[in-house]
Amino acid sequence: VASLSSPALAQGTGEPYVRLAEIEIDPAQVDAYRVAVNKQIQAAVQSEPGVLALYAVADKDTPALVFVFEMYADIHAYRSHIETERFKRYKLSTQAMVRSLKLRETVPILLGTKPR
Amino acid sequence: VASLSSPALAQGTGEPYVRLAEIEIDPAQVDAYRVAVNKQIQAAVQSEPGVLALYAVADKDTPALVFVFEMYADIHAYRSHIETERFKRYKLSTQAMVRSLKLRETVPILLGTKPR
Repeated sequence: VASLSSPALAQGTGEPYVRLAEIEIDPAQVDAYRVAVNKQIQAAVQSEPGVLALYAVADKDTPALVFVFEMYADIHAYRSHIETERFKRYKLSTQAMVRSLKLRETVPILLGTKPR
Repeated sequence: VASLSSPALAQGTGEPYVRLAEIEIDPAQVDAYRVAVNKQIQAAVQSEPGVLALYAVADKDTPALVFVFEMYADIHAYRSHIETERFKRYKLSTQAMVRSLKLRETVPILLGTKPR
């Protein structure tokens, strides 16, 4: 992968591991889901060195449709992330809010961002 | 939007404007498409102040399915971006490579990344 000032380059770890989650939330529980995902993301990027970025966005026309662009230093950082107690609590607490979940593994083409 | 060390905060511009493109490429033209998108992304993030990040990734199981997570300082930066001659050339040069295109406007929930 040709990387251009990517977070991974900033950490000197080579190619990041990127996933894209597509999450359909129960419309009645969107607010509760947002609280849970905010808490989970803030804690993960602050406390897990290999969690480079977690960008959660909602579809503008369908606010119950959420995408998370997930960037990890490598696949091991991802595997550690999903083994944390915090992630397991997040999954359990949001289980009844999620109608469907599509988890996509990707291969970076170019992760272009501003130089740091 | 609650932002946590987002590129937009680094630039002090408030909430970024985020889009997610889903692009199905003609499998026979994936390599040519990758060259074109690399060139377009590198130039845009380097020369357009409002283009914060363009992350292009391919689906691991279906390499002809490409996602671009696009982060702009604001909607005006996006509109300027698509009006550049460079972007118009990219669109024209890749037109015959693209089988389908889904362009999604989003609203950030949390753009969580490492502090700069």
